[in-house]
Amino acid sequence: MTKTATGNFFEDFAIGQEIVHATPRTVTEGDVALYTALYGMRFAANSSDPFAMDLGLQAAPLDDFLTFHFIFGKTVPDISLNAIANLGYADGRLLGPVYPGDTLSAKSTVIGLRELSSHKAGIVYVRSTGENQSGEPVLDYVRWVMVRKRDPEAPAPETLVPDLPEAVTPADLVVPDGLDLSGFDTTQSGSTDLWDDYKVGEKIDHVDGITIEEAEHMMATRLYQNTARVHFNQFVQAHSQSGRRLIYGGHIISLARAISFNGLANASFVAALNGGVHVAPSFGGDTIFAWSEILDKAELPGRTDLGALRIHTVGLKNQPATEFPHKDEGGKDHPGLVLELDYWVLMPRR
Amino acid sequence: MTKTATGNFFEDFAIGQEIVHATPRTVTEGDVALYTALYGMRFAANSSDPFAMDLGLQAAPLDDFLTFHFIFGKTVPDISLNAIANLGYADGRLLGPVYPGDTLSAKSTVIGLRELSSHKAGIVYVRSTGENQSGEPVLDYVRWVMVRKRDPEAPAPETLVPDLPEAVTPADLVVPDGLDLSGFDTTQSGSTDLWDDYKVGEKIDHVDGITIEEAEHMMATRLYQNTARVHFNQFVQAHSQSGRRLIYGGHIISLARAISFNGLANASFVAALNGGVHVAPSFGGDTIFAWSEILDKAELPGRTDLGALRIHTVGLKNQPATEFPHKDEGGKDHPGLVLELDYWVLMPRR
Amino acid sequence: MTKTATGNFFEDFAIGQEIVHATPRTVTEGDVALYTALYGMRFAANSSDPFAMDLGLQAAPLDDFLTFHFIFGKTVPDISLNAIANLGYADGRLLGPVYPGDTLSAKSTVIGLRELSSHKAGIVYVRSTGENQSGEPVLDYVRWVMVRKRDPEAPAPETLVPDLPEAVTPADLVVPDGLDLSGFDTTQSGSTDLWDDYKVGEKIDHVDGITIEEAEHMMATRLYQNTARVHFNQFVQAHSQSGRRLIYGGHIISLARAISFNGLANASFVAALNGGVHVAPSFGGDTIFAWSEILDKAELPGRTDLGALRIHTVGLKNQPATEFPHKDEGGKDHPGLVLELDYWVLMPRR
Repeated sequence: MTKTATGNFFEDFAIGQEIVHATPRTVTEGDVALYTALYGMRFAANSSDPFAMDLGLQAAPLDDFLTFHFIFGKTVPDISLNAIANLGYADGRLLGPVYPGDTLSAKSTVIGLRELSSHKAGIVYVRSTGENQSGEPVLDYVRWVMVRKRDPEAPAPETLVPDLPEAVTPADLVVPDGLDLSGFDTTQSGSTDLWDDYKVGEKIDHVDGITIEEAEHMMATRLYQNTARVHFNQFVQAHSQSGRRLIYGGHIISLARAISFNGLANASFVAALNGGVHVAPSFGGDTIFAWSEILDKAELPGRTDLGALRIHTVGLKNQPATEFPHKDEGGKDHPGLVLELDYWVLMPRR
Repeated sequence: MTKTATGNFFEDFAIGQEIVHATPRTVTEGDVALYTALYGMRFAANSSDPFAMDLGLQAAPLDDFLTFHFIFGKTVPDISLNAIANLGYADGRLLGPVYPGDTLSAKSTVIGLRELSSHKAGIVYVRSTGENQSGEPVLDYVRWVMVRKRDPEAPAPETLVPDLPEAVTPADLVVPDGLDLSGFDTTQSGSTDLWDDYKVGEKIDHVDGITIEEAEHMMATRLYQNTARVHFNQFVQAHSQSGRRLIYGGHIISLARAISFNGLANASFVAALNGGVHVAPSFGGDTIFAWSEILDKAELPGRTDLGALRIHTVGLKNQPATEFPHKDEGGKDHPGLVLELDYWVLMPRR
Repeated sequence: MTKTATGNFFEDFAIGQEIVHATPRTVTEGDVALYTALYGMRFAANSSDPFAMDLGLQAAPLDDFLTFHFIFGKTVPDISLNAIANLGYADGRLLGPVYPGDTLSAKSTVIGLRELSSHKAGIVYVRSTGENQSGEPVLDYVRWVMVRKRDPEAPAPETLVPDLPEAVTPADLVVPDGLDLSGFDTTQSGSTDLWDDYKVGEKIDHVDGITIEEAEHMMATRLYQNTARVHFNQFVQAHSQSGRRLIYGGHIISLARAISFNGLANASFVAALNGGVHVAPSFGGDTIFAWSEILDKAELPGRTDLGALRIHTVGLKNQPATEFPHKDEGGKDHPGLVLELDYWVLMPRR
């Protein structure tokens, strides 16, 4: 059994530890086609090379969450193979567009550790960074995850909980080199609603729902080379609490993002992942709905062509979003709630 | 809710209205690979670059129905988001091959309107045109669709039903620039049957059947960025008449075409879509069979390397094609009938 | 019906007969993306162009079993359309890497024939060869298959059973031109276990299990343009012995190979397929597990950068591999056994 990787357990991590993750990946037009087939993305800048080139880019870049999934997937064998739960994301920034032909690799630094009082597991905080073949960073984010201990008796490291921002500061958002949204074509993009048209506090029901098949979420998760076992093995999962394969949380993020096109068609460029929580698991057969609230708006220094919009997208299962279900008056989650996603996008201005 | 597109209703259309559809799409080898995986296409000219180049093309072009699906998909948010039924196609012509790397966009002109006597809906006739990044047309076709009225009290436009040809005239068929089928390699193509070998009235049972999975038709339909809701949302469809997700009619067209390879292996080049009707819906779990009848043959002016063959392909569900089931003596559709497709292909001659 | 291919029956084959198979295929990055999505392959040399180029290759080559599936698929319409069972493989060699953009074609020679005593079928042995657009061979292997007779009364050809080696001799293994594993990066590949670290007789439980969905195996099999009817047509299969669609045996090979990454992460380069048997069929819903035993090790003449490792990988359904289930003391197959695969890989040395 020594040849078989068993992943890190909580006591294997140390503050400041750097982990270079395996499996560099040359991303291709094939990956993009599958992403379109799995989610139905329609953002024009990610769909058309000429459209993207008219905005100053070299080609249609990958949807930013596809980049996220590739980087996330690489971290799984080292960080979360023995995870009980993926708890959250924070302080994430998209640092540069990724194009078909680029090769992505990833590394992580352990920035926080906290053992649970049960001594059976602990919370691991890592900052993960993705870069391309030239060593240019493309993504940087923090996630924290509850990881089993191999041995409950193993001594726990000193507790350190990192101080994480509620949201990325607009001044820290990175606008892709050369991007100029001043000539943004709203006929081609499918909506005339620009940054100026959104109001803080505005809520948008994205209307559509998409039912998930087992084949789809497994194909997506394998495309990302994400090996977390709970997604693939019904023989073992039959004996789990749910009795089912759990769907990779990122699959729900991309479904919610695809659904959000209807209402946010010009939000192609994600600039930051302020936070994200997978509130409850989803399973094959669930139908995902989504609604969004505009949390904040920011002008960016020296830019009149685009502004930043901070969006809270709520993912729901088997529950239409018409009434914007979220939490009840006591703060208890709506039973259909599966995803809370808080992110900045760059959007064209008038 | 104002940010969310709700699509056009019957009373929103006017004769002569031009609609430029959103979401330009750069088609890729990834799209082609998915198309192969979803249908199992084996036409050599679409499968092999060297084979296509030997015929005078620059590379293996997309299967013509893949081009059709991309263009059709773009029209959905504007034309048929509020459709009750997609009624038919006519007068369609393939105007030039599409290659991976090309960027497709689409526009439509309203050419006919007829309100139903119930005042609840009307028939909209549109001529849709697809073009590539150079503005060269690649496809042109008419479809008509029954669209709900937002308000049954809204005044109806004057009725205009366009005069549509039963079939495209052979003289109007477009042979792709440079195409020369005189050296067509029938060993590589998989059949020695050429244009000369088919007889008008000949019927061919294509033998094979393919069972459809929910994941497959949803991936296909999303690949085409076709957003019609009835295909994806089981939560809502559970309360529909069928209780099921409806399969995009174009998925059945491509299945029937893939199945028709066995008997029509040298029919790679579709030149016209004379007509098409989705006689009945298909659902996940249905097995599609197909048979074809040769309706007509035409020589093309100045061409000895190829001729045109007019084919009627019949799609069936859960019903083998051995006995060529179609209509009974009273003209009533066979209960397994799902598709009638009438098209011209270009085929090599001896 | 004369236009429809019905495939060869046992009495149609003759010793020495050469068959050039149809449908040349330009393989693309789209095919590779689908292969990753269907199996979750993580071998670094097949995943990253820069990683492969650092090893002296021109780009990331296709996984060798993807090449195998493409070649195998081409042989189906001529060799096994009327097969009762695909019995085995032997004497297979990978002769050169295949890259996206290459065009594959295939031919076969009949090297053995043996009628069954029932006179209803016979065993056909073929040597199949795949080559690229330059006529360079990429794969060569023998398979034998039980094929129905069209007419039990038809005279049987003289029996000839070819003499097949138990395994390819190490001296006959082909190392890809330019390949140099001396700088192999084990951080990127995901494992520090090299050729030197494996011992003959060592067994490895690959731990993970993957459940198969109907949509997945059908998409895979169509991607390979493999038309064997038993994989796709539930309407007909419902009346078969199993009542189910049978999964293409190659799908199980690729699943077992993907699962074997955990324990054999540096075994990217398959050099020979010594033997393979599909012991029992698999069906949608089955969960595949795998374990491997190291059968042999060989140094290769003049090479200090790499060595050959002969691996026996056992595929199981609905049966974890922890106890290495295989055969009982009486030699009877374990009820979960579905695949026996015996192959040589090239692996970096210290």
